Amino acid sequence: MTRRLPGDMPPEEFRRFARETADWIADFLAHAGDRRVLPAVTPGSTIDALPAKPPDEGEDMSAILADFDRLIVPGLTQWNHPGFFAYFAITASGPGILGEMLTAAVNTNGMLWRTSPASTELEQVVLDWLWQLMGLPGHVFGMIHDTASTSTLHAVVAAREAQEDLAIRTRGQSGAPPLMYYTSEQANSSVEKAAITLGIGQENVRKIPVDDVYRMRPEVLDAAIAQDLAAGRRPFCVVATVGTTSTASIDPVPQIAEICRRRNVWLHVDAAYGGIAAIVPEMRHVLAGCELSDSLVVNPHKWLFTPVDLSAFYCRRPEILRRAFSLVPEYLAATEDPRAVNMTEYGVPLGRRFRALKLWFVLRYFGRQGIIDNIREHLRLAREFSARIIGHPDFELMAPTLFSTVCFRFHPQHSGDDRLQALNRSLLDAVNRTGRIFLSHTVLRGHYTLRLAIGNLRTSQAHVDEAWNLLRSKAHDLTL
Amino acid sequence: MTRRLPGDMPPEEFRRFARETADWIADFLAHAGDRRVLPAVTPGSTIDALPAKPPDEGEDMSAILADFDRLIVPGLTQWNHPGFFAYFAITASGPGILGEMLTAAVNTNGMLWRTSPASTELEQVVLDWLWQLMGLPGHVFGMIHDTASTSTLHAVVAAREAQEDLAIRTRGQSGAPPLMYYTSEQANSSVEKAAITLGIGQENVRKIPVDDVYRMRPEVLDAAIAQDLAAGRRPFCVVATVGTTSTASIDPVPQIAEICRRRNVWLHVDAAYGGIAAIVPEMRHVLAGCELSDSLVVNPHKWLFTPVDLSAFYCRRPEILRRAFSLVPEYLAATEDPRAVNMTEYGVPLGRRFRALKLWFVLRYFGRQGIIDNIREHLRLAREFSARIIGHPDFELMAPTLFSTVCFRFHPQHSGDDRLQALNRSLLDAVNRTGRIFLSHTVLRGHYTLRLAIGNLRTSQAHVDEAWNLLRSKAHDLTL
Repeated sequence: MTRRLPGDMPPEEFRRFARETADWIADFLAHAGDRRVLPAVTPGSTIDALPAKPPDEGEDMSAILADFDRLIVPGLTQWNHPGFFAYFAITASGPGILGEMLTAAVNTNGMLWRTSPASTELEQVVLDWLWQLMGLPGHVFGMIHDTASTSTLHAVVAAREAQEDLAIRTRGQSGAPPLMYYTSEQANSSVEKAAITLGIGQENVRKIPVDDVYRMRPEVLDAAIAQDLAAGRRPFCVVATVGTTSTASIDPVPQIAEICRRRNVWLHVDAAYGGIAAIVPEMRHVLAGCELSDSLVVNPHKWLFTPVDLSAFYCRRPEILRRAFSLVPEYLAATEDPRAVNMTEYGVPLGRRFRALKLWFVLRYFGRQGIIDNIREHLRLAREFSARIIGHPDFELMAPTLFSTVCFRFHPQHSGDDRLQALNRSLLDAVNRTGRIFLSHTVLRGHYTLRLAIGNLRTSQAHVDEAWNLLRSKAHDLTL
Repeated sequence: MTRRLPGDMPPEEFRRFARETADWIADFLAHAGDRRVLPAVTPGSTIDALPAKPPDEGEDMSAILADFDRLIVPGLTQWNHPGFFAYFAITASGPGILGEMLTAAVNTNGMLWRTSPASTELEQVVLDWLWQLMGLPGHVFGMIHDTASTSTLHAVVAAREAQEDLAIRTRGQSGAPPLMYYTSEQANSSVEKAAITLGIGQENVRKIPVDDVYRMRPEVLDAAIAQDLAAGRRPFCVVATVGTTSTASIDPVPQIAEICRRRNVWLHVDAAYGGIAAIVPEMRHVLAGCELSDSLVVNPHKWLFTPVDLSAFYCRRPEILRRAFSLVPEYLAATEDPRAVNMTEYGVPLGRRFRALKLWFVLRYFGRQGIIDNIREHLRLAREFSARIIGHPDFELMAPTLFSTVCFRFHPQHSGDDRLQALNRSLLDAVNRTGRIFLSHTVLRGHYTLRLAIGNLRTSQAHVDEAWNLLRSKAHDLTL
């Protein structure tokens, strides 16, 4: 226990612990595959291991770091583990971590241009770079949010604001006709959550049915919009998805965009996962039609090696975002210059972390070619795993493998459908309990389905082989 | 230019650059006061200095870091500079930066308990510690958001959900009566922004007038609620502030809480800045009445030495938050155990960065006493500066100094009111142009007012003296 002098940790003390921490991280990354992916902890065990009261006197940094290593790390799910195949796998790459270190140190708050000119401008540069990398035409306003959920929330507010005659910003929604919102049955929960957060109402969220490969059916969308218009309701926003969460299916964006234009409805595209694949030339087609969208979200913190959090939100009509969100009290009065963009005018958060730096580091360190090589390898690994599933008599592919996510189930020959859910649950539990890999699941047309999602930079052929071997061996055990 | 092998930066390369970066940060912190606080850059200059296209091949990390040092840092406003007195001053402390380094490395996404058990639980522990430190009674549900803007947005959604009969989540706002929202004229813009984002409508935001020291007038609030009720409108939320942005005034929370309870209206307290002061025993009174609020936000990334971003949001009725936000699709089906809290059910973002770690490091490294010593010193420096203003015939104090923020203006004897705005604008510009200090301004009852806000750990008596000397000397120059 140390009674400290006023002020921060002295620089030489910081230097010592920062170097130690740098080494800890280097070791951690070198042995990323050695820990359990899913920790062996029970709910409440970390809380119980920590003091119920904060310390009165300051503690030594070495003791604090030792506790992190001893009490916290073993209780973390290892998202940076090469055997992480659940949800969508992600990576904190080396250059991304270096970026985060520097972001923390300079600690800028880019609410206004003047409160952090270079971070404000770097954000514009890197988002433009990413837009170009995805092969999308022209230059579109971009801003960084924490997550796709937040990006989509902003898109929906802009979509509402675009219904100018309703003047929602001034009058609110209570006098307005029901605002109708459309997405597919397979959209991420964040799409519906944006609507309920904004007071659109779950009743007014139309979940359009999908076709046999989980794509929104545009003719049903068009009919739903027509029906709502005829009933005096106000269709205002469609959210299409490129790379849905369950199966990574791709909604038919070109047709949906045509409907939206004709109906004067905002089109937002959730390409949080799938958009990154478009950096690979032969995958560019996955964003077909997205040049016609009003807004689009893609998450570098998903499949572009960037530490959490960094969601890139693009909006073709930034003047509408600004109309929806701008409030400039005197204490935030800012530089008047068309090139001095004040980011807080375009969204909810007033404070803004310097997130662009890590993405700049990642894009420069890997370069276009390095990104392509890695994403292409993930796609190859997924295709190969998918082929193994198809080729095995006791496994069944549950959806086409378009990206790096494979949906499948264990389906032993002669096994009745009624047994399959319990069997696959048990199989998932068995492979995850090994601590070597972590897969998650979904349900497709009532069928319990396993998902293997490849996206970590450290995941190689050997890790996918290990997953396949574990799945077969545990499946075998279950049917003994 | 380097064609890289698939995979991440090799661990030994990472180790080398992480150590270098650790040293860079240690040097940066040791010389935090040597740079210009406000950079000497023009809008667009960073954009113009960077390539318009992303690189095709990977680049050397050493070149990238050199560019950061050369092209980015000189264009950053130095929020970690001891001469930063604008808005509310903040600190990325040494332990906070170490926390950020580790958060980036482990890269967990705490959307569900199982996706990061220890981070989910550490968040509960540190927010409970902070609650105790502020002297508030009992244990209240807490969660971390990026900014106070986001915390307040969540409070308003919960407030709306608490009007159960309206069933907004299901039905939306369009059939509901106008939802009426109350805050003071002096509230932060984020309070109004929450309302416009959520479709409440600016017309339905009642900005309650303040008294002579900028505190919300509770009797006017009560009358406004009564009037709205009589007109068939639905009052649902009051936001009171402890430490307003312009003057750091404190709304009379005990009286406001009594009104809210009587009227069945949700009370949210914005203590983003001021709440931290309550850790100092003689300042505990600033949170009087807050134990009666339904929700409260306080920002460790403001005055508690924690790198941006970390806003602590407390809610006494978490079941209402959960009712408002919970959506559990099959692919997020989670551990069923009352101690396994799935944080994504309580808010907008699905993904969640491990922000609790840096706050844990800060609270442990400084301890209660270290925090008190530093905050108390900031309060003393502000009081002393305030006394200098009062004691000088050509300066005028514009609001009481309750915390570490001093509102004042240059008011030379015999100078007419009409000249004062231009004079103070010029004075602000002159001191900020030195690059040694950075102050911001506000307008109080039509009077252009300068603000000096103390909050950086490196700010000492010498820096406040320098500010005072610069202000007097530049003021003298202006009246020659």
